[in-house]
Amino acid sequence: MRDTYHEELDALSDRLIEMTRLARHAIARATTALLDADLSAAQEVISGDEEINRLDEEIEVSAFDLMARQQPVATDLRAIITSLHMAGDLERMGDHAVHIAKIARRRHPDSAIPTELRSIVLEMGHQAELLVIKAGEVVANRDAETALELDADDDRMDKLRRKLLRRILDPNWEHGVEATMDVTLAGRFYERFGDHAVHVADNLVYMVTGEKPKDFEPEA
Amino acid sequence: MRDTYHEELDALSDRLIEMTRLARHAIARATTALLDADLSAAQEVISGDEEINRLDEEIEVSAFDLMARQQPVATDLRAIITSLHMAGDLERMGDHAVHIAKIARRRHPDSAIPTELRSIVLEMGHQAELLVIKAGEVVANRDAETALELDADDDRMDKLRRKLLRRILDPNWEHGVEATMDVTLAGRFYERFGDHAVHVADNLVYMVTGEKPKDFEPEA
Repeated sequence: MRDTYHEELDALSDRLIEMTRLARHAIARATTALLDADLSAAQEVISGDEEINRLDEEIEVSAFDLMARQQPVATDLRAIITSLHMAGDLERMGDHAVHIAKIARRRHPDSAIPTELRSIVLEMGHQAELLVIKAGEVVANRDAETALELDADDDRMDKLRRKLLRRILDPNWEHGVEATMDVTLAGRFYERFGDHAVHVADNLVYMVTGEKPKDFEPEA
Repeated sequence: MRDTYHEELDALSDRLIEMTRLARHAIARATTALLDADLSAAQEVISGDEEINRLDEEIEVSAFDLMARQQPVATDLRAIITSLHMAGDLERMGDHAVHIAKIARRRHPDSAIPTELRSIVLEMGHQAELLVIKAGEVVANRDAETALELDADDDRMDKLRRKLLRRILDPNWEHGVEATMDVTLAGRFYERFGDHAVHVADNLVYMVTGEKPKDFEPEA
């Protein structure tokens, strides 16, 4: 029984890793949708979110089932609870990719992003991918040391968002209200995507070490 | 033991109701902060969020403790799991009030909301309060019938947000980029606050009836 139990714990972890893979794909395609006004990429992100939600639900069902059947304590209980939180974060990362895809869809066939901001948005997309890839690796390797790096990695994303906002607020900003709204919201969605990736890593640290990283709250 | 157990389930419910009270206070004060450029109201919302987070954490600890000790099944397990989701929604409603308060704080001593949009934003604030009050009542009374009304109540909020966006996109819109950004984000935060209130009500329906309302996913 005990063996099955640990197999089920591992299965939770496998599903989390799969969620990071899907979230990475979603944000990459959402960035393409946004920059290239690519409607089929946008649709793909929107419909693909169901799979992320399904995994989140599976993790939840397994976790509650494990708790009810096994009455885990200490380390095992912490592993289950942190897995639930990580799944919640990844589910919301998928949602943020969907929000970005919907901006693209709303403006199609135009691009929502003015030409001179393309490189910043592209960089935010890359940074988002980097963060979720790294989150997946730390979960796969239960690597609390690398997990602690994500907070600093995310500073880069925050800097990019500030850069984006400065450009919008620049007196030379000559784009209309729609572009202002789209860029404002897109910037926020990338930033939140990054925050959740950091939160996945922080949960991993707590899972492995039992110690909470600075400013960490278990729930995002 | 069984009695203590049901007392603990009731205690979960009491904490949820308290969270709706705090979330209502938060969104009311956030609206004041926004409309009156009231810095102390903004600070109150921001620092008051800790109490909402603390309740969420308490609910989580109790719920996991109950599951681990009691191995509840069927109805009781569903009650615990839906309570966890409702707490998560209410915690995020508090966050959205904080986001609104931070817009107010950022623009202080100016108001972030142009005069001609004050009445729409005020109405969104009222609608947000109405939704969270009603969510609190349906939780308190386990009233699945009234809970089903929230979806339609929230349509009012969505209409207000669309009205707000139309005003921003109107050719006569003469406010700067900062106002465009602030109003765009504030509109989104009110809308999300409403969505989470509906989600609390939907969880209550699922808790009481075992049937999922249309388009309902347990996690927001």
